[in-house]
Amino acid sequence: MKSDIQIAQEAPMKPIRDIAYDLGIKDEEIELYGDYKAKISFTAWQRLKEEQDGNLILVTAISPTPAGEGKSTITVGLGQALKKLGKKSMVALREPSLGPSFGVKGGAAGGGYSQTVPMEDINLHFTGDIHAITTAHNLLAAAIDNHVHHGNDLNLDVRRVSWRRVVDLNDRALRNTLVSLGGRTNGFPREDGFDITVASEIMAILCLAVDIKDLKERLSKIIIGYTKDREPITVADLKMQGSLAVLLKEAIKPNLVQTYENVPAFVHGGPFANIAHGCNSVMATQMGVKLSDYLVTEAGFGADLGAEKFFNIKCRFSGLKPKASVVVATVRALKMHGGVSKDDLKEENLEALEKGVENLEKHLENVSKFGVPAVVAVNRFPTDTEKELDLLIKKCQEKGYRVALSEVFTKGGEGGEELAKEVIDIVENEVSNFRTLYDTDKSIPEKIETIAKEIYGASGVEFTPQAKRNIRGLEKRGLDRVPVCMAKTQFSFSDDPKLMGRPKDFNITIKEIKISAGAGFAVAKSGNIMTMPGLPKEPAAERIDIDDNGQITGLF
Amino acid sequence: MKSDIQIAQEAPMKPIRDIAYDLGIKDEEIELYGDYKAKISFTAWQRLKEEQDGNLILVTAISPTPAGEGKSTITVGLGQALKKLGKKSMVALREPSLGPSFGVKGGAAGGGYSQTVPMEDINLHFTGDIHAITTAHNLLAAAIDNHVHHGNDLNLDVRRVSWRRVVDLNDRALRNTLVSLGGRTNGFPREDGFDITVASEIMAILCLAVDIKDLKERLSKIIIGYTKDREPITVADLKMQGSLAVLLKEAIKPNLVQTYENVPAFVHGGPFANIAHGCNSVMATQMGVKLSDYLVTEAGFGADLGAEKFFNIKCRFSGLKPKASVVVATVRALKMHGGVSKDDLKEENLEALEKGVENLEKHLENVSKFGVPAVVAVNRFPTDTEKELDLLIKKCQEKGYRVALSEVFTKGGEGGEELAKEVIDIVENEVSNFRTLYDTDKSIPEKIETIAKEIYGASGVEFTPQAKRNIRGLEKRGLDRVPVCMAKTQFSFSDDPKLMGRPKDFNITIKEIKISAGAGFAVAKSGNIMTMPGLPKEPAAERIDIDDNGQITGLF
Repeated sequence: MKSDIQIAQEAPMKPIRDIAYDLGIKDEEIELYGDYKAKISFTAWQRLKEEQDGNLILVTAISPTPAGEGKSTITVGLGQALKKLGKKSMVALREPSLGPSFGVKGGAAGGGYSQTVPMEDINLHFTGDIHAITTAHNLLAAAIDNHVHHGNDLNLDVRRVSWRRVVDLNDRALRNTLVSLGGRTNGFPREDGFDITVASEIMAILCLAVDIKDLKERLSKIIIGYTKDREPITVADLKMQGSLAVLLKEAIKPNLVQTYENVPAFVHGGPFANIAHGCNSVMATQMGVKLSDYLVTEAGFGADLGAEKFFNIKCRFSGLKPKASVVVATVRALKMHGGVSKDDLKEENLEALEKGVENLEKHLENVSKFGVPAVVAVNRFPTDTEKELDLLIKKCQEKGYRVALSEVFTKGGEGGEELAKEVIDIVENEVSNFRTLYDTDKSIPEKIETIAKEIYGASGVEFTPQAKRNIRGLEKRGLDRVPVCMAKTQFSFSDDPKLMGRPKDFNITIKEIKISAGAGFAVAKSGNIMTMPGLPKEPAAERIDIDDNGQITGLF
Repeated sequence: MKSDIQIAQEAPMKPIRDIAYDLGIKDEEIELYGDYKAKISFTAWQRLKEEQDGNLILVTAISPTPAGEGKSTITVGLGQALKKLGKKSMVALREPSLGPSFGVKGGAAGGGYSQTVPMEDINLHFTGDIHAITTAHNLLAAAIDNHVHHGNDLNLDVRRVSWRRVVDLNDRALRNTLVSLGGRTNGFPREDGFDITVASEIMAILCLAVDIKDLKERLSKIIIGYTKDREPITVADLKMQGSLAVLLKEAIKPNLVQTYENVPAFVHGGPFANIAHGCNSVMATQMGVKLSDYLVTEAGFGADLGAEKFFNIKCRFSGLKPKASVVVATVRALKMHGGVSKDDLKEENLEALEKGVENLEKHLENVSKFGVPAVVAVNRFPTDTEKELDLLIKKCQEKGYRVALSEVFTKGGEGGEELAKEVIDIVENEVSNFRTLYDTDKSIPEKIETIAKEIYGASGVEFTPQAKRNIRGLEKRGLDRVPVCMAKTQFSFSDDPKLMGRPKDFNITIKEIKISAGAGFAVAKSGNIMTMPGLPKEPAAERIDIDDNGQITGLF
C-alpha cells in the first residue's frame, strides 16, 4: 500500500471555496489560505448560531498502547462513510504540532484513505495558529522579565514565576534553563524552562474561547506567578491581554480543509491531552454542529482521559451535547492489554485478546456514565486474524455492545459504512441523556475522587503535602470551583503506566495541583507529566527532504 | 493628521488578485492569503526570468539619528509618484519583525499616505515567513543538542557551538542562558542564548537564495560549531538541510501586497542590517525588476552600511544592476549631525544644518564610487522651516547634486512627483556604471580596509588578536574568499556612535570575524552588536488592544 504522504499527494481535492459553498458558508465569510485551506470569519458564526444543531458524535478509544489505535483515522473515515450513506457530514480534528513531525511520530491528521488534506500543509505550518500561540506565549514571558528588570512594581517573586516559555518543537535541552544571565543589562537571573507550544495555557484558552471578548477575558485571568506574599499576579496586572488577543485574532478562527473524499473538515486547536483538555476548539465544533447533520470529532488519548475531559470540560463550558460515542479498539492493542509484548503482536493470541477486552469494557462503562450511547469500532489491521476479529466482535455482542468492523484506513468511507449505520441507528433510535459527572461547586478533592473512583476504578485518592498546600491556596483565593483537568498517564487507568488492562485495587496519588485560571480549570497531576518531548537518536528530520520542484519526501 | 493605523484601515485596497493580474501574473501563479496578500509561485519566476529587466532604483539614506529619516516611506512614496507619472512601478521592501512592534518602534512598512497595506497583517504574522524561519532555526538547534545527547558521533565541542536559538521578540532575558539543565535525561548543560529571528543566518540565506536547490545548498553549508580539534561542523553533517528546506518552502516565495495608492509591493525577507546584509529578498527584487519598469527598493541603515552591502553583497550575488540611487535626508537629522541635541530640533538652526550636510555629502560620494547616479530626497517634516529647506536644497545644488523635496508622508505619491521626475531623468539621460568595490579574491583584511577607507573615510583598520585568529582560521579552511558583511554602528561612519557628521582621522577596530558560510559572507564586527533587543519600561504592548469586533488600536 502507498504511504500516507503518497496518498495525500494524489488526493482529488476540490477548491476549498467550493467545499465552503456546499456547506452554506458565504463567500465573504471565508478567508483563503491558498486554494485548499480557509479560515471562517466570526460573521459566519453570528449568522449560524441561531440555527438548529446537527448530531455531535465523539470518537474516543481504549487506553492507548504502542500498537496504535487510529482514532483520527476512524474519525475521518466515519465522516466519509456518513457522506456515502447520504448524510451531510463534517469532521472536526485537532491541528497537529510541528515538533513530533520531525521526531518519530507520523502525521496527526488521519491516515491511509481516511486523512485530511492538504496533509503536508496541515502537518507543517498550516495557517500559522500554533506560531501565533508561540508568539503570544513568549511575548507574555518577555513582558514578565521586562517588568522585573524595570523595577518590579508588582513585587513578583522571581522564584515563583509559573509562566514558562514555549517552542513548537521537541527540544529536551530547553526543559530546564537559566535565563537573564550576563550582567545587569540583561535582567535578574532566574530558573526557567520551555514547554512544547501545545502545552501552553493559551492553547487551552484558544480552544475554549467563543469570541474575542471571551478570549480577552480568559487571557486576562492567566496567573503568571506570585508575589513574595504569595498573591497571584495575572496578565491583567501586566496589561498584556490586548496585545495577546491581537496576536491571536486570526488563530481563533476555525480552519476549514477537506478529507480525502471531500468531506469538509475543521482542523483547529490542539491542546495537550494531559495538562489540558485535549480536544479541538469549541468554535470549530460548534460551527460544525450548525453546518452539518453529523459532526464527528475526537478527544485525545483513551476515554478515561480524552472523553472524560471532552464531557466534563469542553461540553460543560460550551453547552455542546453529544448524541453518540464511538470507542475505537484494535485487536493488537487489546492483545497488549492482555499481556502480549509489542514484538509478539503478529502472532494470533486469542487468550490475550479475550483478557484484554476488559480494558474496552471499562471504557464503555465509563461512557455510559455520561449518558451517551456508544458503539465499538474495531479498527482492522493487516495482521489481525479472522479468528481474532470474530472473537472480539462476539465478545462485544455477548455483552450487549454495538460493534462494527472498520476498514477506513485501506478503503476510505466505504470501509466505515457498517460503523456509520450503527451511529445513524443510535442517533435515530436511542436517546442520549448527556450529563457531566460532577458539580463544579464540589471541593477539588471531591471532584478528583469522583473521577478516580467512577472512571479509573480506583479505590481512593492520596494527596501529597504539596497537593494539599495547592488545594488550600486555591480554596483561600476562591479559585477551586472549577472543573478538574486530570494529568495522568494515558497508558493505564491507574497512575502507573505499566498497569495495563483493567487494573483493580489501586490508589491514585495526586502530587500537585495547578490552576489554569484563564482556561478555567485546575490541573491535577498524578506523576511526572512531560511537557517537552525530546527527539530520538535518528529523528525523522534526518530523512525528510524536498526536491528542486518542491516535492516533499520522508514526511510520514 | 490621522495615525498610520487609521490611514491604513481606511486604505482603498484592491483585491490582490486584481493587482497581480495587472502585473501580468497568472491566476495559477499566485496563492492567496486572504483577499489582500498573496505569495508568488516559482513557476512565475521560471516564466519571467528571460524577460527584459526594468529599472532598479535603490533608496538609501544619511547616517540615521533618533530624529528619523523615513526611508521606507520615501520608497513607497516614490513608487506611487512614478505611477502617477504613468510609469509601471513596483516597490520591494523588507518584511517587519514582530518584536519591535510590541516595544517602542512603529510599523516598518512605510508611513502616512505612503505605506504598504494591509499594514496590521504585514506588521503582525503576515504570511508566516518569519515564524517559518524561527522554527527552522530552532529545529536545527534542537538537532544539535540531540546529537550531543545521543552520543556526539561528530565530536562537537559543546563550548564551541556557534548556532544559538531565536525568537521573533524583544526579550533581553534570553540573551544569555544555560540549557540542558536538570540531569542526565535532559542532555549536556552548556551556555546558549537567543537572538531575534531576523538576525538568524537562515534569514540571510532566505534573502539570497534563488530557488529551492540554492536554498538547500546554502543551508547545508551553515557552520553550527566546531569539533574539539576546531574543525567546522555543518548542517550537512547533521543531515538537516532537507527538513530545514521543507520548513522554508513557502517562506521563500515572495509576498505580494499593495501600497496605499495600489502600487504593487513585494514585502519579503528582512535580515538584520548589522550582522547580515539588510535588504529584502533577491527573489522579490528580481521578480519585481521583471514585472515593472521601475522597481524601487531600499537597504537598511545609512548608505555606509545598507547601500554598501546592497551593492557589494546583494547585487554581486544576484547580478542585479541598479540604475539610480535616492539618498534620503531630513533637516532634523542633518541638524543632529551638525551638533543639535534631539530636544532642540524644533528650533531653526541654519548653522548646524549647514555643518551637518557634510554627512550627506560623504554618503553621496560613496554611492558614486559604485558608479550609480544619485538624487537627494529631502523628506519634509512639519517642524522644518522654509529657510532650512531652502538652505539644504541650495547647498545640494551648489555641489552639483540632484535634489528634490518630498512630501509623500502627508500627500502620498503626489508629494513625490518632483523626486520621481529626477529619477526618471537619471534613468533616461544618465548612464549607471555599476561596479562592486572590491574583488572577493582579495584577503579579508584587504577587503575590510577598502570598505573602511573608501566608504567610512577611516585612516586605517586595527584587528584585535581575536580577529586575527579568526582570519587565520578562515584562510586555513579556504573560507575567506567571500564578500565581507560589516557589522558597525549605524550612527557614525566610524565605530564610535557618538562621532556624528563626517568624522576624520579615525581608525576602525575589528574585534571578531565570523563566517556565515551558508549566506556566503564573513561578518566583521567592530564593537558590540546587539542581536537581541529588549523592551522599554512601558512597552507598546501595554497599549495595544482589540475590540469585540476585531478592530485593533494602539498598534503604531
